[in-house]
Amino acid sequence: MTTLKNDRFLRALLREPVDTTPVWMMRQAGRYLPEYRATRAQAGDFLSLCKNTDFACEVTLQPLRRYALDAAILFSDILTIPDALGLGLYFETGEGPKFHKTVRTEQEIAQLPKLNSKVDLSYVMNAVSTIRGALGGEVPLIGFSGSPWTLATYMVEGGSSKEFRFTKQMMYAQPELLHALLDHLAESVIDYLNAQIEAGAQAIQIFDSWGGALAHREYQEFSLQYMQKIIAGLKREHDGRKIPVIIFTKGGGQWLESMVATGADALGLDWTTSLADARQVVQGRVALQGNLDPATLYGSAATIEKAVKTMLDNAYRNGEKTGYVANLGHGITQWADPDHAKVFVDTVHEYSAKYLG
Amino acid sequence: MTTLKNDRFLRALLREPVDTTPVWMMRQAGRYLPEYRATRAQAGDFLSLCKNTDFACEVTLQPLRRYALDAAILFSDILTIPDALGLGLYFETGEGPKFHKTVRTEQEIAQLPKLNSKVDLSYVMNAVSTIRGALGGEVPLIGFSGSPWTLATYMVEGGSSKEFRFTKQMMYAQPELLHALLDHLAESVIDYLNAQIEAGAQAIQIFDSWGGALAHREYQEFSLQYMQKIIAGLKREHDGRKIPVIIFTKGGGQWLESMVATGADALGLDWTTSLADARQVVQGRVALQGNLDPATLYGSAATIEKAVKTMLDNAYRNGEKTGYVANLGHGITQWADPDHAKVFVDTVHEYSAKYLG
Repeated sequence: MTTLKNDRFLRALLREPVDTTPVWMMRQAGRYLPEYRATRAQAGDFLSLCKNTDFACEVTLQPLRRYALDAAILFSDILTIPDALGLGLYFETGEGPKFHKTVRTEQEIAQLPKLNSKVDLSYVMNAVSTIRGALGGEVPLIGFSGSPWTLATYMVEGGSSKEFRFTKQMMYAQPELLHALLDHLAESVIDYLNAQIEAGAQAIQIFDSWGGALAHREYQEFSLQYMQKIIAGLKREHDGRKIPVIIFTKGGGQWLESMVATGADALGLDWTTSLADARQVVQGRVALQGNLDPATLYGSAATIEKAVKTMLDNAYRNGEKTGYVANLGHGITQWADPDHAKVFVDTVHEYSAKYLG
Repeated sequence: MTTLKNDRFLRALLREPVDTTPVWMMRQAGRYLPEYRATRAQAGDFLSLCKNTDFACEVTLQPLRRYALDAAILFSDILTIPDALGLGLYFETGEGPKFHKTVRTEQEIAQLPKLNSKVDLSYVMNAVSTIRGALGGEVPLIGFSGSPWTLATYMVEGGSSKEFRFTKQMMYAQPELLHALLDHLAESVIDYLNAQIEAGAQAIQIFDSWGGALAHREYQEFSLQYMQKIIAGLKREHDGRKIPVIIFTKGGGQWLESMVATGADALGLDWTTSLADARQVVQGRVALQGNLDPATLYGSAATIEKAVKTMLDNAYRNGEKTGYVANLGHGITQWADPDHAKVFVDTVHEYSAKYLG
């Protein structure tokens, strides 16, 4: 394996000393980049882009050519697992993801196949190993999955949802059914992420995009518990290096204390959480990642610089020297100016010298 | 004026002793009730239901005939103010509210008329006084408005939104424009709510439905500041009784400390917040209202009872004897079983004897 030239992202997640603050952007390979839109047009549609190794590798690398990012993230979709479990993922223009089948009954849950990711999701593993090779050790590669709860909402609803009617009906009226589904998904995610690690992923992020729709007690029972199970089942070391794990519950800012107990190395924060308060809560037990409002990039360069500086001031206010990865608080939007993303990335590196230099 | 026979809702908001926990449900006059659907069918569409005094009064009273609720809430829409400012509110079947006009430029903001609610929103004031008369002093009547930030999102976007693209562009690129709009809206809301109080509203709730989409610092600058201005401008007493004010920011559970400073009497909580934690944060300085996940009503009677008991145990765990109003953490959904709403209401009254009896 090639030596990793820039490991400050991995080091910060493990709370080891770093020379400058590492930074990446959720959804950094995305529609705001004209070169992404061109590749996507070539691929035809979004799923073809994910499933074609060359295209997936190309769009993964595109933002790294523009910006001094400290990590790459596998280009894929969070719904690859339900698709591989036979639900039939598809996208209609202008709408969110949809499935041909839903999973709502005891029988439908019992009939879900056991996932063998190396076979059933070989296109993802090919993408991971191809991207890893193409990176040539410049920066580490992040693998990822949706959380069991988040995947379950799409499978039960049959697509995106605002109110989670059917998933919440199952949760409150037949909780044992939902637990069976979540348990199957947790096993699937463990298999999927371990396969990504073997294929070359050097850090893992679990996206719990809809955890914030849960009540505080139900978050622990129906989402966090299964992320904890996944973390316990992951290969935490590969090729002599630790594999850090980040959990990111959008809307989970009130539950950081309970997240610390999962064994995750780092918590992702959305933009509603005060980074200074979050540092106080976690007290150095885990690293933090985040959390500029992606809409900040709609402002001027001066506004962005000021916001990044405030973010770093809050991250390091108590004298910490590591345990922090700069990021947006959610995916960069399609309306962001690519030049403004550069201001974001460069300001993180330049200004963090004040604390780490 | 008729004497108020049941004032425990007002007393709890003002942190005065109560004999049992008062309870009402956000959106208690709504689609889950067959009698509501019948009246709405008679009215034709949603806006006609709001604008016809008799229909608005009828649907306000319907849930009180079924349940032992401790408050009625004016039946209306949060978007009456933008409609009265000339934006042209309309609803298309199966979609959220929309406006014929948007407000995005300095000129469009400067041209917004000064609201005279008694004239421009006379149908709301007629509804308030008619409902107040029809209630005959049984329970108090809640008046309400959307928060300036929440109203602004609809006016700038031209309707509902998930990402608030244009509002956030204005916030980060031209904050002074957004402040001008918010200031105009705060003045409008003050006028509107004071007119409701004069017409007979006995408590006020400000719905900040989209405050939770803001970053923590921006919440204070662009939403909370304007709710504070409103509270300072409201008549806090009418006909010899105090008018309590509740502010409810959906997704605002991380910001309770700053909300206490607004002068509100009570904070509404959504279901993501731990009521026990919230009591700790506010330390008796304000009352709390909430916060069962509305989806809990999808469960069995036994499940609902258990959830209500846990909620009350958390509300009173530190020996408090008042300062708490039971509610859902958001509006009751159209899929709730009306009999389950009765279990919710009755369990609150019965079980709270354990703490208040």
